[in-house]
Amino acid sequence: MAVYTDLTDEELRALLTQYDLGRPRAMKGIAEGVENSNFLIETDTGRYFLTIYEKRVARTDLPFFMALTEHLAARDFPVPRPVKMKNGDVIADVRGKPAAIVTFLTGLSARRTTVQQCRAIGVALATMHEKLEDFTMTRPNALGPEAWAPLIMPRLALAEELRQGLATQIEIDLALVADWRSGLPTGAIHADLFPDNAFFMNDVVSGVFDFYFACTDALAYDIAVCLNAWCFEQGSAFNLTKGQALIAGYESVRRLTDEERRALPALARGAALRFFATRLADWAATPEGALVKPKDPLEYADKLEFHRRAIGAGDYGA
Amino acid sequence: MAVYTDLTDEELRALLTQYDLGRPRAMKGIAEGVENSNFLIETDTGRYFLTIYEKRVARTDLPFFMALTEHLAARDFPVPRPVKMKNGDVIADVRGKPAAIVTFLTGLSARRTTVQQCRAIGVALATMHEKLEDFTMTRPNALGPEAWAPLIMPRLALAEELRQGLATQIEIDLALVADWRSGLPTGAIHADLFPDNAFFMNDVVSGVFDFYFACTDALAYDIAVCLNAWCFEQGSAFNLTKGQALIAGYESVRRLTDEERRALPALARGAALRFFATRLADWAATPEGALVKPKDPLEYADKLEFHRRAIGAGDYGA
Repeated sequence: MAVYTDLTDEELRALLTQYDLGRPRAMKGIAEGVENSNFLIETDTGRYFLTIYEKRVARTDLPFFMALTEHLAARDFPVPRPVKMKNGDVIADVRGKPAAIVTFLTGLSARRTTVQQCRAIGVALATMHEKLEDFTMTRPNALGPEAWAPLIMPRLALAEELRQGLATQIEIDLALVADWRSGLPTGAIHADLFPDNAFFMNDVVSGVFDFYFACTDALAYDIAVCLNAWCFEQGSAFNLTKGQALIAGYESVRRLTDEERRALPALARGAALRFFATRLADWAATPEGALVKPKDPLEYADKLEFHRRAIGAGDYGA
Repeated sequence: MAVYTDLTDEELRALLTQYDLGRPRAMKGIAEGVENSNFLIETDTGRYFLTIYEKRVARTDLPFFMALTEHLAARDFPVPRPVKMKNGDVIADVRGKPAAIVTFLTGLSARRTTVQQCRAIGVALATMHEKLEDFTMTRPNALGPEAWAPLIMPRLALAEELRQGLATQIEIDLALVADWRSGLPTGAIHADLFPDNAFFMNDVVSGVFDFYFACTDALAYDIAVCLNAWCFEQGSAFNLTKGQALIAGYESVRRLTDEERRALPALARGAALRFFATRLADWAATPEGALVKPKDPLEYADKLEFHRRAIGAGDYGA
């Protein structure tokens, strides 16, 4: 949660002259997103979301993210649609930083997911994959397996400090899940579809957003991320009913191949390792006594314990 | 800027069942207000602002603030109007903390004030004072002159550290402005009407808010606060044109008495001292390297220098 760029009324007015959105009527800095500055703005023509991209999102990646959401919005998939400037661009400049205005989505994020919501997100994920079939741009997954060891290995001592015996387990995980992608159907994926990146209205998905990890990778990896993010209860027990609902929802739109089913335990373990890796790095980078607490890496260490014991897709409800 | 209470979708739904506002459609944590948690919410019936009162606002003061804004809203003064619950109350409970839902105001705050805006805020301030003439509740000014010495004296060494010679000057200020209230017309005042507590639409005041320092005190003290907050340029030069505009705007609605005019330099000096006092205390309380930088007390030390040299109301544009 942060607003790094403290946009003034004059800057907002100047920015809006580059769009056909009318004059500004309101602006609120949003306490959401750790990496970008986000503003809810209202103009004569409606409500929009303004993001100013701070350091972590690479400027060169923005055209991919923007084209992907435009592609989905054009196919009636509920994503924030980038608003074109008068000159046709979707990326503006605010104090030398890239910025984008997108449409406003209604809905609420689920804090504790329900079985119905797990089913709905499965349906939405498969629908998104289908609608992205003819999306031709590609972007490598910067947080794929190659990235995990460089993030984790220099911090193994910290992992061991957080939980005795964890370092050895993680080293084994790293060795085992390295080739989880091979031979699986690939395409554009979200790669970070956590409950706080989706909106619901009456248990129907009304928004999917935060595509800043979107990339070209195994479609089933997106399911593996969702199984980790949506189907564990507090205390890290896997809720098989939620897993069944999510996978059944997905398969009501797109059937999994046999290879994808077989790969599911490795994919789920890999997904858990990916979030463990970045959380461990964030944990290491956060000074003691910092105001903003980083997310706990041990949540994913716990989930990894479940994945290590999983034998087949049946363990996830497939 | 902060969201201390991280409201869940379920908590919002439960809260809204106590109101006649329909079901929730959206919720955004707002990066604004250092002391409370603020959310922009949208329901079937419109947009509202939800505040959860964290530690600094005393629960016992809330009825005064709520009644004051209700009083103003009922008289078409643009303030956020508290929304009544089904049981008639305006103060709800969220996790044991008091909370209130108020109407949403459109408009933008001025970062750099214009002369027109200074005139408009003067008009709004006098209009507010007039509309509060028949408001009967009272609340002592907890940050009146009695509060300044206890805030400043234990931190005089810090003041001296911030600027050589400042400690002695501030001690003299404290001794001189102690009786600035006596004999002046009093009433309910805002007491903290900074540019970020007002909205404009096309240079007309469209909102006045953040009444959490509102109290019963000298009406002209509200003008003195505004002169400090609206009419100084960066580098702390007083902009006489802005001062003239603000006071002329005020007097177009309510004429200042001779006593108020005479008291203006002392009031302005007192107001500057009040903000110096709380900023000095916040500065002292902030650990080195903290993420959120406190506001600079020296801004008000600079303004005090101007006020010390002021001879009469003419120095402020009256």
